[in-house]
Amino acid sequence: MTRAPVSIDLNADLGEGFGRWRLTDDEGLLAVVTSANVACGFHAGDPSTMRRVCAVAAARGVRIGAQVAYRDLAGFGRRSMDVPPRELADEVAYQIGALRVFAQAAGAEVAYVKPHGALYNRIVWDEAQADAVVDGILLAGGNLPVLGLPGSAVRRAAAAARLDFVAEAFADRAYRADGTLVPRTEVNAVVDDVGAVVARAVAIATERAVTAVSGERVSIDARSLCLHGDTPGAVDLVTRVRTALREFDVIIAPFV
Amino acid sequence: MTRAPVSIDLNADLGEGFGRWRLTDDEGLLAVVTSANVACGFHAGDPSTMRRVCAVAAARGVRIGAQVAYRDLAGFGRRSMDVPPRELADEVAYQIGALRVFAQAAGAEVAYVKPHGALYNRIVWDEAQADAVVDGILLAGGNLPVLGLPGSAVRRAAAAARLDFVAEAFADRAYRADGTLVPRTEVNAVVDDVGAVVARAVAIATERAVTAVSGERVSIDARSLCLHGDTPGAVDLVTRVRTALREFDVIIAPFV
Amino acid sequence: MTRAPVSIDLNADLGEGFGRWRLTDDEGLLAVVTSANVACGFHAGDPSTMRRVCAVAAARGVRIGAQVAYRDLAGFGRRSMDVPPRELADEVAYQIGALRVFAQAAGAEVAYVKPHGALYNRIVWDEAQADAVVDGILLAGGNLPVLGLPGSAVRRAAAAARLDFVAEAFADRAYRADGTLVPRTEVNAVVDDVGAVVARAVAIATERAVTAVSGERVSIDARSLCLHGDTPGAVDLVTRVRTALREFDVIIAPFV
Amino acid sequence: MTRAPVSIDLNADLGEGFGRWRLTDDEGLLAVVTSANVACGFHAGDPSTMRRVCAVAAARGVRIGAQVAYRDLAGFGRRSMDVPPRELADEVAYQIGALRVFAQAAGAEVAYVKPHGALYNRIVWDEAQADAVVDGILLAGGNLPVLGLPGSAVRRAAAAARLDFVAEAFADRAYRADGTLVPRTEVNAVVDDVGAVVARAVAIATERAVTAVSGERVSIDARSLCLHGDTPGAVDLVTRVRTALREFDVIIAPFV
Repeated sequence: MTRAPVSIDLNADLGEGFGRWRLTDDEGLLAVVTSANVACGFHAGDPSTMRRVCAVAAARGVRIGAQVAYRDLAGFGRRSMDVPPRELADEVAYQIGALRVFAQAAGAEVAYVKPHGALYNRIVWDEAQADAVVDGILLAGGNLPVLGLPGSAVRRAAAAARLDFVAEAFADRAYRADGTLVPRTEVNAVVDDVGAVVARAVAIATERAVTAVSGERVSIDARSLCLHGDTPGAVDLVTRVRTALREFDVIIAPFV
Repeated sequence: MTRAPVSIDLNADLGEGFGRWRLTDDEGLLAVVTSANVACGFHAGDPSTMRRVCAVAAARGVRIGAQVAYRDLAGFGRRSMDVPPRELADEVAYQIGALRVFAQAAGAEVAYVKPHGALYNRIVWDEAQADAVVDGILLAGGNLPVLGLPGSAVRRAAAAARLDFVAEAFADRAYRADGTLVPRTEVNAVVDDVGAVVARAVAIATERAVTAVSGERVSIDARSLCLHGDTPGAVDLVTRVRTALREFDVIIAPFV
Repeated sequence: MTRAPVSIDLNADLGEGFGRWRLTDDEGLLAVVTSANVACGFHAGDPSTMRRVCAVAAARGVRIGAQVAYRDLAGFGRRSMDVPPRELADEVAYQIGALRVFAQAAGAEVAYVKPHGALYNRIVWDEAQADAVVDGILLAGGNLPVLGLPGSAVRRAAAAARLDFVAEAFADRAYRADGTLVPRTEVNAVVDDVGAVVARAVAIATERAVTAVSGERVSIDARSLCLHGDTPGAVDLVTRVRTALREFDVIIAPFV
Repeated sequence: MTRAPVSIDLNADLGEGFGRWRLTDDEGLLAVVTSANVACGFHAGDPSTMRRVCAVAAARGVRIGAQVAYRDLAGFGRRSMDVPPRELADEVAYQIGALRVFAQAAGAEVAYVKPHGALYNRIVWDEAQADAVVDGILLAGGNLPVLGLPGSAVRRAAAAARLDFVAEAFADRAYRADGTLVPRTEVNAVVDDVGAVVARAVAIATERAVTAVSGERVSIDARSLCLHGDTPGAVDLVTRVRTALREFDVIIAPFV
């Protein structure tokens, strides 16, 4: 009896410098991921970096996603903000439009949207902001899929607008038995051991499950694995995850 | 013997508020101009204002232009900056892309580009920055025409790139005998008298000429008249210019 | 039998432009208020405006307060932000320091601190951010008093740090029977009628009470009246409030 | 015959991160320099970084200087800007005031001012901006000395205002026979070899001279050596310079 081949996407945040500052090894990451969440200028990302990242991504067949965020350079988009929904929708559309210029100049397209940081976390539960993000995507045109957390408000908002929602999982984050992430405020929120991260990545891809902090097996239904690009050794970690996935005959391919 | 009908475009800067701040009577101006230079967020212009202005412009058949600028909210884009050409090109493309989202959402298109403030003045003589603006326009795609000053470096740069260049004239600015503007640092740089402004607008449109400060008649070859939108009474002034032009059988229509 | 003379301070937000944009009639307001809440650059307020406002305030004996805010020019500081307390304290200190230069250059001092907008509202209930604002004030030195809402978290935080807390009241806002403000999201939150505003100002100063929306009399213990400076007719309204207060023998003087 | 002991200051740019981004090893550099040019928020530097750097500097007896800059986070203050002198003076004062809060909170003072990047280079020749920087320093109070390039316009402006001007030299930059720096646009502008940098530092301190690119000996009259903190190995380089200077009996001490 043969198992059907499984496929998974690998996504990472890229282009998160600003002017003189750099954060991520964009070139290195673009060699190993299949989807690049490109910062659009609101929490990070200047126009020249956006152009360069899009050019390399397009050349390598890496899908380009708009990593939309709150307007908050000082806080790197990590501070939740009570942005009125109408303004938030317009800010999301603005960022997608700005990135689209560079994707198209590279012969590619903005293929999806991934909200960043505090916005990502907020639209797990905030219906109004989740709707606003979806409104911004609709305004920008192209019916772009949304990459986010399973069970989130934005998943429902996307479904209501007939946008594709792509669930992602984290190989380096601890999960609770109910399938939610252990908050970063708790110890053991992050899995540091590289071997453990690799093993969890394989489990998520091949078994669609992971071991929760309680020891229970919890189902994870994800079409993409998010790998953190802003840590030292990020490229090496993603490479090891790739290698392990290939050894388990997992097809590594963009979700789009 | 009948004269061939003449046609002219009326353009004004719009959407130059930011967040809580407003500068221009956008609704009023969109009722009287044929081309709207919409601020794109670098010197002024927030996403919600951009969306609203594009919606009204599209509904009225007013052409939407990207009013690209230096990244300088504090200085309103009026401070010349030594931005490296590659960065400047990318910043121009970014702004066009951001505005395009709102133009397209309104069923229209970004139809042209008009550099703003210090950038406008600088690319009259700075070849490198003029080339950079043109590079940014090419990067953004669509071969957008450039609206600017006759005899400027950007005119040559646009021609070299086979972009249409549209010369504009100012009914409320004094000209020297060589066809250049009297700098704002000099007295009499600005024509304040409304009747004089109206008469000069008619002369520019129908005679393609205006009286210089020296008293000589100087040829002005312009397809568009720029009217300042950030003064009290701006809408009234444009309305009077329109009425006078119509009395002289001038067709008022977008240049695009 | 004679009543002891009562005294009240009149405060307003000033200097809330940014670069090219203006919001408040700073000159006009400085002729009628006793305390000026000067924007410090985070939600509004550029250095030149800060200098000019401080110079006029000092010349007129108007007290200068630091109107500290979230770093949010696009949202005018009106969007609540989850700024980590340590960062918020440092941002508060930074703003006070920047304003102090201009106050001292004018021969005056920063005499108090008034949080602005969403920060003002948040530290009514958010203990951590209230403590952070007080920490920022302590860091800045000078034991500056805090101007805010009675019964707020920041009042308790200030008391714990032995900072003077000065309660303010709003003549143009409706109160509930428990002494709290009717939220702006409700109809009738704002009192529009000028005569009513003037009468309420007098009642607050002389009777230390105001009529709630429910018709009940509610005690208001305030040493300062906040008057909104960003509405047309603001200067005229403050002038009328002043005149009425004087007719009732209220001494109009800074609380500091 | 004994030589009089010579003394020199070692200064470096510090605190040049912003929010999530870091550039310099502030802790490491504060262990080896005697003067810290602290970024004040306009080209880099957030309030929390400013506080932390001031605290460590004060604890170690390192002098704190205000590294004032153009308002240009995106360009890291490296793009020359035509800021009107009055605005520039106010921006300089604003930055000094903001830093002063953190210096004083640490029990120290802002002891000097060092203009950054494009502003540093511009006030070598631009009299109006040089005067503006001095005006800003005067506005901020305290008669702070200015650290800059010998023979510059700002030296004359400081002298005219009776401010102390402290000339600095660069051990890692090539000089021309006339004592000016080889522009960075030319090859050989920067001395990369560590041994050569160390030797030049010693020559500047002990002989008050350095070998120009033309091979001639050129006098350098500098009270401070500027060492670049934003390169890998910066701390190690400064340490080696210190050691070599001590071997030549040079006293390493702040110029203030």
